[in-house]
Amino acid sequence: MDNPVDSRALDLALDLARRGPLTENPQVGCVVLGPGGEVLGQGWHRGAGTAHAEVAALADAAARGHDLARTTGWSAVVTLEPCRHTGRTGPCTRALLDAGVARVVVGAPDPTPTAGGGAAELRAAGVDVVVLDDPRAHELVRPWARAHRHRRPAVTWKYAATLDGYSAATDGSSRWITGPVARADVHARRAQHDAVLVGTGTALADDPALTVRDASGAPLPQQPLRVVVGLRDLPAGARLLDGSAETVHLRTRDPREALAALWERGVRSVWLEGGPRLAAAFWRAGLVDDVVAHLAPALLGSGRSALGDLGATSIGDALRLQLTGAHVLGGDVVVLARPTDPTPGPVPDQTPSDQQQEA
Amino acid sequence: MDNPVDSRALDLALDLARRGPLTENPQVGCVVLGPGGEVLGQGWHRGAGTAHAEVAALADAAARGHDLARTTGWSAVVTLEPCRHTGRTGPCTRALLDAGVARVVVGAPDPTPTAGGGAAELRAAGVDVVVLDDPRAHELVRPWARAHRHRRPAVTWKYAATLDGYSAATDGSSRWITGPVARADVHARRAQHDAVLVGTGTALADDPALTVRDASGAPLPQQPLRVVVGLRDLPAGARLLDGSAETVHLRTRDPREALAALWERGVRSVWLEGGPRLAAAFWRAGLVDDVVAHLAPALLGSGRSALGDLGATSIGDALRLQLTGAHVLGGDVVVLARPTDPTPGPVPDQTPSDQQQEA
Repeated sequence: MDNPVDSRALDLALDLARRGPLTENPQVGCVVLGPGGEVLGQGWHRGAGTAHAEVAALADAAARGHDLARTTGWSAVVTLEPCRHTGRTGPCTRALLDAGVARVVVGAPDPTPTAGGGAAELRAAGVDVVVLDDPRAHELVRPWARAHRHRRPAVTWKYAATLDGYSAATDGSSRWITGPVARADVHARRAQHDAVLVGTGTALADDPALTVRDASGAPLPQQPLRVVVGLRDLPAGARLLDGSAETVHLRTRDPREALAALWERGVRSVWLEGGPRLAAAFWRAGLVDDVVAHLAPALLGSGRSALGDLGATSIGDALRLQLTGAHVLGGDVVVLARPTDPTPGPVPDQTPSDQQQEA
Repeated sequence: MDNPVDSRALDLALDLARRGPLTENPQVGCVVLGPGGEVLGQGWHRGAGTAHAEVAALADAAARGHDLARTTGWSAVVTLEPCRHTGRTGPCTRALLDAGVARVVVGAPDPTPTAGGGAAELRAAGVDVVVLDDPRAHELVRPWARAHRHRRPAVTWKYAATLDGYSAATDGSSRWITGPVARADVHARRAQHDAVLVGTGTALADDPALTVRDASGAPLPQQPLRVVVGLRDLPAGARLLDGSAETVHLRTRDPREALAALWERGVRSVWLEGGPRLAAAFWRAGLVDDVVAHLAPALLGSGRSALGDLGATSIGDALRLQLTGAHVLGGDVVVLARPTDPTPGPVPDQTPSDQQQEA
């Protein structure tokens, strides 16, 4: 991108977008810039049924006392092409035009035929529109697009391990491998997903609560669906059956079946927590969209792995991923990666039943 | 640090320092700043017998056409307190005073009684001296200080692994786990050490060359000593015996014995490449100072570990390290870590024989 003001605004819009949940709609962020490039408003999409990022940014600008109707030459920088269709909220193109936008910078075009066309509509109304092909903006939409293309929830596999790759010691103990900041990051990311999924093995061995808690340990008001996959029964006293959040037990070992059942329930994103055999089954079926690895600067020399057998015997069999980020968090390292998409392309139009759910 | 100009100059000086080898002397970097804060010269210590960082930076300033003798109010920002003793090169305090320095910013005080006192000497001569306690400047000297305190070479353990912790597939294949940029980084870091060390197991299984090559694959003119540790013989045709660099075979399994023998030969830093059992023996003996891990965004699900048994059975037994860095390099992640120093404190005065070798 040539313009450093646009570039910084897109960086900010991408950061804002990532705060949003991975639910029915893609993550979108928007920044409203004044004629001099100053930030007047910020917004992101907080989930189905709530304001789209553009509308949220316009509202934020108003709340900060900026009268956009009396401001000439202001821009909106948005990670994804604004929608021009009416779901549960009105079209964003209309909201931007009504507010008097002069210029719109788009991070990536909308991949769905139904929602697409927003840029053209804005241009037809005399707005100066710049549509970028920013790779980060494309990446942001990718898991959502893939899920809708395949009509199954987007899956994020999460694990914590020592630097030498162990998720638990040989005696099974694993609390705690990573530090409090990394564990808080897990809770924040878990909260962005519609469902948290574990196998019965993990449920029986660890008796996890799988709820989302804030820094003080208090549960958040909205909890992801807790999902247990596998044939074995949970004991009556299991924390997953304590009623602190909804729990579903899917009596299958087939990841495809589990995801199909969850899609039918309206689940659009799954946070996969393990165990190793279940994670391997998802990988073998090509059903993982994102990896979030928290690596602790610790060495065990022996122990249990986060991932079961993938059938790889030679280095050429390794499952190769694309790195999307790596940074220090607290005293640990967070590594983000994803498989390269085997089936890129446009997202098919959504069915009427989806359209009704869509914001 | 209050002053942003000093702060940026120290960042640069630290980067310069890290280019230097880990040999007899610590890594030191120096930046010469003009009265307006502009960079006039840069220098770092390139190894025993060559110019100290301060002298190199003064020479660089001269080479760039700056006449420091006719410049008033210039500063030197140096990662380590300038020396005031005469080794193979003259004292740096004298070089700075002769060149007319007005102000010296020091990242960390010198931990050795012999070399220390440089700041006081500069102050006595009327120079404005600021001695910081910058943690990165302290870290830079730490492995060197530890080695001299214990009179054994500083040891850096290097390994490459998949994101799930495997350094080779189950069939032993490991070429290549990481990409070309990470492998070039390994060569550059290997070249900074006096010796490269492997066990006979690795030597027999992989027949490695352990030479340092440039990006084109050509060997560098100066090669670290190649060291094989263990009781088994190497076959006559082994690449380690090809004469392309000096090789020593230490017939012991005791890391302490091996390091003592290498110290006697003048080796001050060791790049430990494996295998897993030898690495575990170094860790168990508390003889590793630094970890350089190259992690590839790939999953194997099974395979061979970089590190053998440490005797840890519970998570509480994990060997905890301190993270010193993590960043993306090429398509891989580099993680830098080190044990917290169990025996901090001043470095003892060096013996006369060391003094003679010292630059």
